[in-house]
Amino acid sequence: MSGIAETPEPPYVAVVFTSLRTDGDNGYAAMSARMEELAAQQPGYLGIEAARDGLGITVSYWADEESARAWKDVAAHVVAQQRGRDTWYSDYRVRVATVTRDYGPLS
Amino acid sequence: MSGIAETPEPPYVAVVFTSLRTDGDNGYAAMSARMEELAAQQPGYLGIEAARDGLGITVSYWADEESARAWKDVAAHVVAQQRGRDTWYSDYRVRVATVTRDYGPLS
Repeated sequence: MSGIAETPEPPYVAVVFTSLRTDGDNGYAAMSARMEELAAQQPGYLGIEAARDGLGITVSYWADEESARAWKDVAAHVVAQQRGRDTWYSDYRVRVATVTRDYGPLS
Repeated sequence: MSGIAETPEPPYVAVVFTSLRTDGDNGYAAMSARMEELAAQQPGYLGIEAARDGLGITVSYWADEESARAWKDVAAHVVAQQRGRDTWYSDYRVRVATVTRDYGPLS
């Protein structure tokens, strides 16, 4: 389990990846861990948050649109090298968004 | 479990609520279900997605900033009427973002 990402003051970019899994692991857990490792090494990476209980939601945070786009290409490459999205996901949606404000219990 | 929200063409607004729970239910499940029901009745509501496994992520989608802000006030009111955030959450972060593009397996 990941925690709450420590992101800087907005604006920054959030990539919301919502997915429904296929049955069986089929290497998914290993791929998923590798993806999080790889993301953290990319330029502009700010953090990642993930949860799954049937529906999966992964939100990655990026300094700007350019680094979010570059990550998309890296992630697509990793998936393509392995089994392809159809093996793991029965459906998914990616939403790229600009965070304009944020707050928590202390702000 | 909710499914993938059927949102319209961007732009629209995503409110990403990431949280860590306190121990015990303390009425949380009932409050959470009530919140999702209430959200769906608000003007500008487009959909909601939620997952929790330790970390919880709820993303609600809204037609514009105005409806997202109005929902914030309604949600805060519901929480205040009940036990308050401190009962349910040890930490949380709310991020309000403008979705600029999205895509799935078929687009």
